[in-house]
Amino acid sequence: MPEWTFDKFGHGGDYNPDQWRHIPGIFEEDLRLMKKSHCNLMSVGIFSWAALEPEEGKYDFEWLQKVLDGLYENGVSVFLATPSGARPAWMSRSYPEVLRVEANRVRNLHGDRHNHCYTSPTYRKFVNKLNTALAERFGKHPAVVGWHISNEYGGECHCELCQNAFREFLKNKYGTLENLNHAWWTGFWAKTYTDWGQLESPAPHGEHAVHGLALDWKRFVTHQTVDFMAAEIEPLRAITPDLPVTANFMGTYPGLDYFRFQDVLDVSSYDSYPRWGAGDATDEEIAHDAGFKYDVTRGILRKPWILMESTPSQVNWQNICRPKKPGMHLLSSMQAVAHGADSVQYFQWRKSRGSSEKLHGAVVDHVGNENTRVFRDVTEVGEWLEKIQPVLHADVPAETAVIFDWNNRWALEEAQGPRKDKKYEEQVKEHYAAIRRLGADVDVIDMEQDFSPYKLIVAPMLYMIKPGVGEKIEKFVENGGTFVTTHYTGYVDENDLCFLGGFPGPIRKVMGIWAEEIDALYPGQKNGIRMNDGREYECGFMCELIHSEGAEVKAVYTDDFYAGRPVLTKNSFGKGEAWYVASRADQAFLDDFYKEITASAGVSLPGEQTAGVLMSRRVKDGKTFLFVQNFSGCAKEAAIPAGVDLITGEEVGGKTEMKVNEVKIIELK
Amino acid sequence: MPEWTFDKFGHGGDYNPDQWRHIPGIFEEDLRLMKKSHCNLMSVGIFSWAALEPEEGKYDFEWLQKVLDGLYENGVSVFLATPSGARPAWMSRSYPEVLRVEANRVRNLHGDRHNHCYTSPTYRKFVNKLNTALAERFGKHPAVVGWHISNEYGGECHCELCQNAFREFLKNKYGTLENLNHAWWTGFWAKTYTDWGQLESPAPHGEHAVHGLALDWKRFVTHQTVDFMAAEIEPLRAITPDLPVTANFMGTYPGLDYFRFQDVLDVSSYDSYPRWGAGDATDEEIAHDAGFKYDVTRGILRKPWILMESTPSQVNWQNICRPKKPGMHLLSSMQAVAHGADSVQYFQWRKSRGSSEKLHGAVVDHVGNENTRVFRDVTEVGEWLEKIQPVLHADVPAETAVIFDWNNRWALEEAQGPRKDKKYEEQVKEHYAAIRRLGADVDVIDMEQDFSPYKLIVAPMLYMIKPGVGEKIEKFVENGGTFVTTHYTGYVDENDLCFLGGFPGPIRKVMGIWAEEIDALYPGQKNGIRMNDGREYECGFMCELIHSEGAEVKAVYTDDFYAGRPVLTKNSFGKGEAWYVASRADQAFLDDFYKEITASAGVSLPGEQTAGVLMSRRVKDGKTFLFVQNFSGCAKEAAIPAGVDLITGEEVGGKTEMKVNEVKIIELK
Amino acid sequence: MPEWTFDKFGHGGDYNPDQWRHIPGIFEEDLRLMKKSHCNLMSVGIFSWAALEPEEGKYDFEWLQKVLDGLYENGVSVFLATPSGARPAWMSRSYPEVLRVEANRVRNLHGDRHNHCYTSPTYRKFVNKLNTALAERFGKHPAVVGWHISNEYGGECHCELCQNAFREFLKNKYGTLENLNHAWWTGFWAKTYTDWGQLESPAPHGEHAVHGLALDWKRFVTHQTVDFMAAEIEPLRAITPDLPVTANFMGTYPGLDYFRFQDVLDVSSYDSYPRWGAGDATDEEIAHDAGFKYDVTRGILRKPWILMESTPSQVNWQNICRPKKPGMHLLSSMQAVAHGADSVQYFQWRKSRGSSEKLHGAVVDHVGNENTRVFRDVTEVGEWLEKIQPVLHADVPAETAVIFDWNNRWALEEAQGPRKDKKYEEQVKEHYAAIRRLGADVDVIDMEQDFSPYKLIVAPMLYMIKPGVGEKIEKFVENGGTFVTTHYTGYVDENDLCFLGGFPGPIRKVMGIWAEEIDALYPGQKNGIRMNDGREYECGFMCELIHSEGAEVKAVYTDDFYAGRPVLTKNSFGKGEAWYVASRADQAFLDDFYKEITASAGVSLPGEQTAGVLMSRRVKDGKTFLFVQNFSGCAKEAAIPAGVDLITGEEVGGKTEMKVNEVKIIELK
Repeated sequence: MPEWTFDKFGHGGDYNPDQWRHIPGIFEEDLRLMKKSHCNLMSVGIFSWAALEPEEGKYDFEWLQKVLDGLYENGVSVFLATPSGARPAWMSRSYPEVLRVEANRVRNLHGDRHNHCYTSPTYRKFVNKLNTALAERFGKHPAVVGWHISNEYGGECHCELCQNAFREFLKNKYGTLENLNHAWWTGFWAKTYTDWGQLESPAPHGEHAVHGLALDWKRFVTHQTVDFMAAEIEPLRAITPDLPVTANFMGTYPGLDYFRFQDVLDVSSYDSYPRWGAGDATDEEIAHDAGFKYDVTRGILRKPWILMESTPSQVNWQNICRPKKPGMHLLSSMQAVAHGADSVQYFQWRKSRGSSEKLHGAVVDHVGNENTRVFRDVTEVGEWLEKIQPVLHADVPAETAVIFDWNNRWALEEAQGPRKDKKYEEQVKEHYAAIRRLGADVDVIDMEQDFSPYKLIVAPMLYMIKPGVGEKIEKFVENGGTFVTTHYTGYVDENDLCFLGGFPGPIRKVMGIWAEEIDALYPGQKNGIRMNDGREYECGFMCELIHSEGAEVKAVYTDDFYAGRPVLTKNSFGKGEAWYVASRADQAFLDDFYKEITASAGVSLPGEQTAGVLMSRRVKDGKTFLFVQNFSGCAKEAAIPAGVDLITGEEVGGKTEMKVNEVKIIELK
Repeated sequence: MPEWTFDKFGHGGDYNPDQWRHIPGIFEEDLRLMKKSHCNLMSVGIFSWAALEPEEGKYDFEWLQKVLDGLYENGVSVFLATPSGARPAWMSRSYPEVLRVEANRVRNLHGDRHNHCYTSPTYRKFVNKLNTALAERFGKHPAVVGWHISNEYGGECHCELCQNAFREFLKNKYGTLENLNHAWWTGFWAKTYTDWGQLESPAPHGEHAVHGLALDWKRFVTHQTVDFMAAEIEPLRAITPDLPVTANFMGTYPGLDYFRFQDVLDVSSYDSYPRWGAGDATDEEIAHDAGFKYDVTRGILRKPWILMESTPSQVNWQNICRPKKPGMHLLSSMQAVAHGADSVQYFQWRKSRGSSEKLHGAVVDHVGNENTRVFRDVTEVGEWLEKIQPVLHADVPAETAVIFDWNNRWALEEAQGPRKDKKYEEQVKEHYAAIRRLGADVDVIDMEQDFSPYKLIVAPMLYMIKPGVGEKIEKFVENGGTFVTTHYTGYVDENDLCFLGGFPGPIRKVMGIWAEEIDALYPGQKNGIRMNDGREYECGFMCELIHSEGAEVKAVYTDDFYAGRPVLTKNSFGKGEAWYVASRADQAFLDDFYKEITASAGVSLPGEQTAGVLMSRRVKDGKTFLFVQNFSGCAKEAAIPAGVDLITGEEVGGKTEMKVNEVKIIELK
Repeated sequence: MPEWTFDKFGHGGDYNPDQWRHIPGIFEEDLRLMKKSHCNLMSVGIFSWAALEPEEGKYDFEWLQKVLDGLYENGVSVFLATPSGARPAWMSRSYPEVLRVEANRVRNLHGDRHNHCYTSPTYRKFVNKLNTALAERFGKHPAVVGWHISNEYGGECHCELCQNAFREFLKNKYGTLENLNHAWWTGFWAKTYTDWGQLESPAPHGEHAVHGLALDWKRFVTHQTVDFMAAEIEPLRAITPDLPVTANFMGTYPGLDYFRFQDVLDVSSYDSYPRWGAGDATDEEIAHDAGFKYDVTRGILRKPWILMESTPSQVNWQNICRPKKPGMHLLSSMQAVAHGADSVQYFQWRKSRGSSEKLHGAVVDHVGNENTRVFRDVTEVGEWLEKIQPVLHADVPAETAVIFDWNNRWALEEAQGPRKDKKYEEQVKEHYAAIRRLGADVDVIDMEQDFSPYKLIVAPMLYMIKPGVGEKIEKFVENGGTFVTTHYTGYVDENDLCFLGGFPGPIRKVMGIWAEEIDALYPGQKNGIRMNDGREYECGFMCELIHSEGAEVKAVYTDDFYAGRPVLTKNSFGKGEAWYVASRADQAFLDDFYKEITASAGVSLPGEQTAGVLMSRRVKDGKTFLFVQNFSGCAKEAAIPAGVDLITGEEVGGKTEMKVNEVKIIELK
């Protein structure tokens, strides 16, 4: 499959000249402003179906030809989009079966975007025809450097076509209803299925108590979306075998298991909108959240990725939308690059004039010129991207992996007990941020990926353990790896059936513990962690009551009837160590814990860290590029390793004043 | 069109003797109690359809004849109601098309009230026939002094009849789909319409992203309701050309643009239910809210109006319903009169015995006699209304107008960014209350009305500026007027398309500023206003980043990266001044600001004000009547201009003790 | 009707061996563990329809035969369940009319449990056939000691069959539409019904403003559920006339009036899941809540009852599910016995392996053996139940009744004004708990039951007074009883029509007061109670403004315009006393008040009480058994009357140290 080999950092964004076709002079002004802002890559044609095929079978490609020609002539390359994210009104009217049916079994009306059935042969046929025509007409256009497939896939359809596809999916998976009935444990509440036709997707007014059904339905939605995407790509691959394809994802969007798109994607991409300046989190906390999602995106293919959308100023769809403060646009753009992005793209180039996107930040504002703070900020990013060319296509040298697994997440969401809110993503990110605060680079992967590249693997709340994963963890530790997991781990197999014989099921041996019970605490209720050396920390939310079965007890609970029982254990196993943190611990614990763990695991760190100043590395051809980013909101004196500043060309190192929102990119010695 | 010339202050309320027909003696007792409580005006027949037409085509008017006769004989006049607010069960069963279809496209079942299609020819035919019969039978009855049309129009219908009417409405407005597509900016998300039949009203499961559609749908709902009301009135006008018609409105009800009813109403009326004694606002704050809605009601026709409903004690439909404290019934009734009401009417005369209205306050309680606190309070109001006869039909002498515009409000509600909650009505009322605290009388109008009568016009958050309005503002200022607006002004035209070339669009010149960006603050985040003379105030919520383009900078922000940039500007333009307040300022700022502004604009004020004691004026035949109303909740010493107390006949003036909830009505010297 | 005469305290729970049929050895292990944990009674076959009738008309009873045989051979008795709580998928597919239609008039899909129409002749026929077959095959099995009918009846169906049944119900009740129209007060909003076919159940998109309709619909739902249950029982009674039947109820579940099941139940039972250890309530408060529901359950038939479900550890469906602390399982199990339970049953015996019940606490955990804290706790309860055999079938000697009435509750929920949240159940429990804190035993009954057995009757918020109840109260007081009621009493008759002539309607005379108005306070607003002797307390929420009409004023309000007006009155009437508490009073008031009231009413109390240590009594054959239960969460020194400890056999009495969660059961001297 083709690689993303664009020879510059991409800089540009969603470009929708079809919205402005009727206003003369706008296109020429766009070209002038692109040059001025150092933009070189635009995504064109997203949602353009109504412009490309104004009536059934009648294509209008002339406007697009002119756009591609003009961009190319002005040195701007193009992600050409397939417009399948929304269909024109004529199609909804003539072929209502392309519209989506929600879980309540009511078919949507025309409207919105992402409102189509992924199974519908009609919709697939229309997509195939138009994609074929686009590829034939524009696939070899010199401006085009990649395919942008649809837009932010999401949602699900419960129409009868999808019900039948789901039944086929289940037949393929289980073979017999007996197997299915066992896997879903349908012996309760008279749920045994005796005919494939009895199977239906979950519904608020139908079946919503069978966790295996809910889990398989979510898997089916991903399966069908991947299948639809593969069908979209098929004619493109046939006609333009060398053009890489991507699809812009949404970080940790709950509805799709992005790791399952590995086989159809050439490069992954992400639409990132952190809430800088929020009143309920610090910018440093927000930066860790953003970094986590960058690492999820990179983790899909474990290689550099595309920042496909970001805002040059503010968004318009959050409850409260703040513009970026001075310096934040550069800082936040470079953070994405630090985590492996090979581009900084925006939504969108020119602010829409009307309707729901008209107040979303864009490079060119309604005022229409370059005399805005935002335009100057964008231009500065363009200049930086040109100066850091050596970093292009460099890898992130992660020796630590954090497991964030959609199947596990779905199972946790369905799980009833010991509390409704599981806070899986939050707890994974708490561990992630503690490791990142040490300056360690991290891969975020799911449990199906290769564990062998890592020295340290952290898998909070690994409630579900799929077949083979227990063995993989054992082998990883045996071979010298350090493995960390927490409470609520090893409860169920891949079908959400509980392991019999004692939790944490298949990793009971490698962890050296048995988890007998689990407490859930009300808001305000707390417990404590007392280390063997007397240090104390807070914990709560869930407190698991575990017994050591060989593991060394490193800390105990301080309160309640389980005071004195283990809360932190270490099991030496083969050449490695397996750690169990039986409760949700506070940040102080996690910071101290991972400081010791990374040291004992031999994870390489970039040196002394300063609170709020984040460090990340990319490596290429033996060179290491260190990104030093001040998200603290105030000036900081940071210790910086010796190297050359890529922007100024000067030698740097030692105690260095970092201004508010300042970023430095250093080629280390 | 006929005027409201009833020669007394109306005093009475909704009277539903049809509910009590089967209980002998009740009607006679009602007549006795009406006399005792000084009541002279009853609204009869609201919701009486099932009694008037118990089966299709079979009218029963005898009971109504007896009621009108009895009332007339006892000196009580009547608003005769058309009963269209609810239809009888037989009609819903035989003609289900009269029932409403909600936005989810499901037709309602029979039940509730206001549950009918305003488009349905069937419903209109039934209404026309019954209204005709009522007018023929009772139109000349000596008791009848006006028509009460339906009741509290509201809601909307999405049935296929309404869809077609909506399409016609759009064809009339836009002429071509090309015009419509441009106005709605349908070039995004493949939304271009290529056939009128593709157009449908907004739906939660259909189109909800096209703001122009949402806006036009709301306009259509008002249009169709006005059209329905006009159809209701038609036979009444034909038969009783001299009887004025009114329809009871609901203050700032969001679903209907009340200003568009100007052409069909002879006199406006309002159902007012302030939450006196609430735990989350002071009575003074509640009084400003009530006063604002009174001024909205008066603003529809810019003349005196009818207080059509109020409670003599407490309501039953708020979350928490407190009875009025001693004095409050008189005080709050006179407040309506102070703002231009020519009546004090109640819902309702006699407490319903069963179902959802049975615990709503009424003049006659379930105990059934006059020995209640509420009955005595009502009687006192009746006595006062007789004593203040000189005030009847007097005008309110407003030199200030505050703009509260439904089209702007709807556009703001749809607008995405920079925050979800816009608080338009709240912010308008903050400016309104600051002006009212100075004792100034205020008209509340929309942007389509004549600006020339005013010295000061305040238009907070004038996000939408319709064609001609910018010019009207310019001319108003040029001619010496003072105009005040705020952040988030001048963004869009009448179709919600952004102005290109710089905000605030058509009033950029008269304001002398350019608004480049806008910040939205999280709860708890604040900024400050520093005046040139050093005074400081708080501001927040939204902070617009503006540049002076000629305007004088009168104050700057104190914090964040825009500290030192303008937050308050004054532009001298022609003979007038245009002020821009770029953020939501605190009450201290608004109080100081409007003190200075009203002085420089030459707005006449009634003299020294006392916190919590509100003053309002009505004028007639060269006489000025001053209402002094103590809403502070405690005794106050207030400065009162010299005059004669209309109730006691005594000369008053100077420092005067006002008791809790005391009101004085003074004819000024 | 047969009695519950099982000659041991039942100990066991829901047993679902059909879920484990395919795993060899599980059944044998279950038998071993039942013996070890002193279990003697299992509920078998709940939700087993798919196992019992895997296809239409084809029964598979062999597995059940083996289960019953095995249990019997091992000394375990059985509640045999009818499986009607959920139907197999084949039935939903072939006979969709058995599925429920919700209030929105949409028929549910197959799924969930309790998803069937209680009216459907098809469903009733299937139930009848299967119940008949079960009774014929297993009714005389020596293991079987009772019938467990269905499971936790609940919900409602709005299908056309139910609509017709509802119309018949109304015809039977009212005879004529004229009667119905009067009772529902349909004269408002044109609601008069002129044809029975116009009547429909309430709907969110239909009629929801007629309180009489809402009330009668709720009554119909209970009526139809009782009718369905009677139909279920009919073949069982015919074949096994000596077996008692029960149905497990849910305490104060709002959807069904449990008191109306008196005629079809032989013994009542309850599924109890208190939230011990919660963060928003103390264990003592939770114990009073649990005790109240135990007393409701006992009140249905006024005799001992079955604790049919409880958790041996934690549940999985609450927002936060805590395991029981050491001692709490014994303490809480014995609390149920203290309130009249003749069993301690669990949900469930063996933890389900999959789906929504898999993390609910059970006797046998997934680890599968007896080496758990939970199994040891269960065993201890089993041992205690054997030791307290003398208490079996003993009565609770209540001289006090608290009225908790579903009809009243439903009317209150519908009532609009003076506030939305009425907090009926909470306020009833506040009075209940104050009485219980004195150690008094309490019956909880509805207003239709016999009042003559009691010395004290407390009826908070008796908003509805059904015909005859006023007379019953009068007679009760006349004969020397003490009656207490509160604000918001005596407003409506059994059809929610207000009493004319003055509240509290039919008990105005016996209470000696007239309630003129009622205030509702916002959160944070308070009033006070000043007793004649100067003691003061807080009150609020609702404050009724009453006039004494002969009653002695014992306390007055301290604040607002009604300061000095009565808030507590006592009316001596015949040989008894009638007390009116006109506001929601704080706990200090209730504690002092009931101390005095119980003394003057002559209610027998068990002696000195210690805060947090609850006392309850059961009596049999002249013996009194006192349960002393420390729910305070800390060690307490309690005063214990002299007697013999049933567990240790030792003499006890006097000041005694009670450990955390300790319980003592004493046969008093």
